[in-house]
Amino acid sequence: MQIFKPINEKKIKGKVKKVFEDIKKTRNIKKIPNFWRYLANNPENLERTWNNLKIIMKKGALDPVTKELIYIAVSITNSCEYCTRSHTFAAKKKGASEQMLKEMIDVVGIANQNNKLVEAYQVQVDKIFK
Amino acid sequence: MQIFKPINEKKIKGKVKKVFEDIKKTRNIKKIPNFWRYLANNPENLERTWNNLKIIMKKGALDPVTKELIYIAVSITNSCEYCTRSHTFAAKKKGASEQMLKEMIDVVGIANQNNKLVEAYQVQVDKIFK
Amino acid sequence: MQIFKPINEKKIKGKVKKVFEDIKKTRNIKKIPNFWRYLANNPENLERTWNNLKIIMKKGALDPVTKELIYIAVSITNSCEYCTRSHTFAAKKKGASEQMLKEMIDVVGIANQNNKLVEAYQVQVDKIFK
Amino acid sequence: MQIFKPINEKKIKGKVKKVFEDIKKTRNIKKIPNFWRYLANNPENLERTWNNLKIIMKKGALDPVTKELIYIAVSITNSCEYCTRSHTFAAKKKGASEQMLKEMIDVVGIANQNNKLVEAYQVQVDKIFK
Amino acid sequence: MQIFKPINEKKIKGKVKKVFEDIKKTRNIKKIPNFWRYLANNPENLERTWNNLKIIMKKGALDPVTKELIYIAVSITNSCEYCTRSHTFAAKKKGASEQMLKEMIDVVGIANQNNKLVEAYQVQVDKIFK
Amino acid sequence: MQIFKPINEKKIKGKVKKVFEDIKKTRNIKKIPNFWRYLANNPENLERTWNNLKIIMKKGALDPVTKELIYIAVSITNSCEYCTRSHTFAAKKKGASEQMLKEMIDVVGIANQNNKLVEAYQVQVDKIFK
Repeated sequence: MQIFKPINEKKIKGKVKKVFEDIKKTRNIKKIPNFWRYLANNPENLERTWNNLKIIMKKGALDPVTKELIYIAVSITNSCEYCTRSHTFAAKKKGASEQMLKEMIDVVGIANQNNKLVEAYQVQVDKIFK
Repeated sequence: MQIFKPINEKKIKGKVKKVFEDIKKTRNIKKIPNFWRYLANNPENLERTWNNLKIIMKKGALDPVTKELIYIAVSITNSCEYCTRSHTFAAKKKGASEQMLKEMIDVVGIANQNNKLVEAYQVQVDKIFK
Repeated sequence: MQIFKPINEKKIKGKVKKVFEDIKKTRNIKKIPNFWRYLANNPENLERTWNNLKIIMKKGALDPVTKELIYIAVSITNSCEYCTRSHTFAAKKKGASEQMLKEMIDVVGIANQNNKLVEAYQVQVDKIFK
Repeated sequence: MQIFKPINEKKIKGKVKKVFEDIKKTRNIKKIPNFWRYLANNPENLERTWNNLKIIMKKGALDPVTKELIYIAVSITNSCEYCTRSHTFAAKKKGASEQMLKEMIDVVGIANQNNKLVEAYQVQVDKIFK
Repeated sequence: MQIFKPINEKKIKGKVKKVFEDIKKTRNIKKIPNFWRYLANNPENLERTWNNLKIIMKKGALDPVTKELIYIAVSITNSCEYCTRSHTFAAKKKGASEQMLKEMIDVVGIANQNNKLVEAYQVQVDKIFK
Repeated sequence: MQIFKPINEKKIKGKVKKVFEDIKKTRNIKKIPNFWRYLANNPENLERTWNNLKIIMKKGALDPVTKELIYIAVSITNSCEYCTRSHTFAAKKKGASEQMLKEMIDVVGIANQNNKLVEAYQVQVDKIFK
């Protein structure tokens, strides 16, 4: 049962309103994605999550596209359809090419395979890697 | 029970020998990591896995450091200690800075959190993301 | 391919009938949820699973609502939509408030993040926690 | 390779020092657990994570023991040894009895089983749960 | 956002064409399943993945049905609906009976439960299993 | 913190004693593995889990070796070291050859990879698989 419904964008105020406006401005979008409208049921969590995400995903030693690719790689590994789709959208908007996305997917595929081969053979960590 | 032991590097021949030499040359290392020594119990799988990995991780639209960061992000998400440690080693060797690794970890942390918030609220995919 | 179809509630007999009646009585419901109708393809498993669930979820040192919240937390972490929805329904019926559900979700979010930060930093267990 | 070492508690200053003092006071402990000492390599993330955790885990509609049990349930499901051990410690300190922990474990066991039975049978969500 | 669309079967050539023909012949099917049509956006990965799968799933010390059952067990554990459905189809085609599928599901259920009970109790490996 | 210690095999009685004797007899072993000694802290759960496992793993449409291989495949996918090792031991005892184990590992590897490629490309289920 889905007890929480997405908050209606037209009926917001206070903390939620402030965060929603910041999301629109930062992302340069006109409509708040469902994720944030659901989180808005919990204004404290909405504010914390948005502030963290904004800080974490901005340009640093890694550029925003690389960060989005890492985010998608985690989302694929966790089988999160919403996250995979929404961050593929974001990655493209920030400049990720199809070729970059393909190569990221290749890495995700082989990493998931090798992670399990390591478990299968119960491989001990080499001294040089400790 | 660990029925497979890592293959002794000094007793190899044929396909395994060929792959091991290629690993040493490509990676510029003198000792074969345990992962490959275990896989060598299954020479076909060793060859397939090494060839795939070599092709996938080489420079393309994404540079090798970015690919390693994506690989580590998946390995952390899958709780694979060996893979996290060995690919952190590789990432550093290929030029990843501590700051880059920190930022990758930040993205992995928030992505794992948000992936589960999406499940918790059962968020539907926005039209724009389809 | 879905080779198993949900068993038609009107055509049951024997072990399945007995379990279905117990489910309806215990849960105070009139219609058997799909989960049990699918499991009924395997009457032994149906009976084992229902009996275990009934014993495990009843009041003990933990009250039924707390048990449902724990069940949902696991289901979110495993990305099981059916389980998340059906046990949110159950939790509400047993008295869980929206505020309780929100706080559970907050804990699930931060736990999933911190679980992965621990993997990322390869944190050793403190002596005091052993 | 573990490129980040736990920060030496005696050499901290600024933001890290402030957070560490708050951790000691809030948790009533004398030694900072390894998790926070590793996170301190990334002072921004340390501060964010601690502040979030402190807010989320405090008494609300759910009592602190219930929140710890939910945290442990997630950590078990994610196979995070450190998190399972450290939060079992915390749960005990906050008043969780052995019986409560046993019942939580029972719920985690059956939830993990049923989550997968749902996937196995590809169970559709009942209308009543939507 | 789904940036990759399934490749139109009628417009293929070169490597993709060769692989698609091999898939149809090997599987004795007339229409290429969506999985391969998506992978065809990345012809190198398509070829590698198909060749590996073909070699791995063919009769060896384990018969093809057993291999399909193992494949499904992994797919259920990873909550991959597409994989569960498509390999259940394959398993049936290769001769898996409903009873075999039921028993496989039972094993998957109890294994997932016990895997987590092991984490919950932090069970150390017995000497005899090392 | 590990609040539960493995039960001392010499100090058992009642339900636990009965189950332990059945384990020794069924498995033809002299020493109770740690898993059961931990579970014995919770006699009800011990009895339920053992009885279920005994029924599920016995010969049916699938032979015991195939069931063990499926069990190991799930345990590898869940990164459960204890379970992987203990059931590899069991599989060998019941007659699994090294070649069979190798082929099972190959399937686990490619299944884990393809499960994630399906998520990456967001592949829709073909009509024929529904």
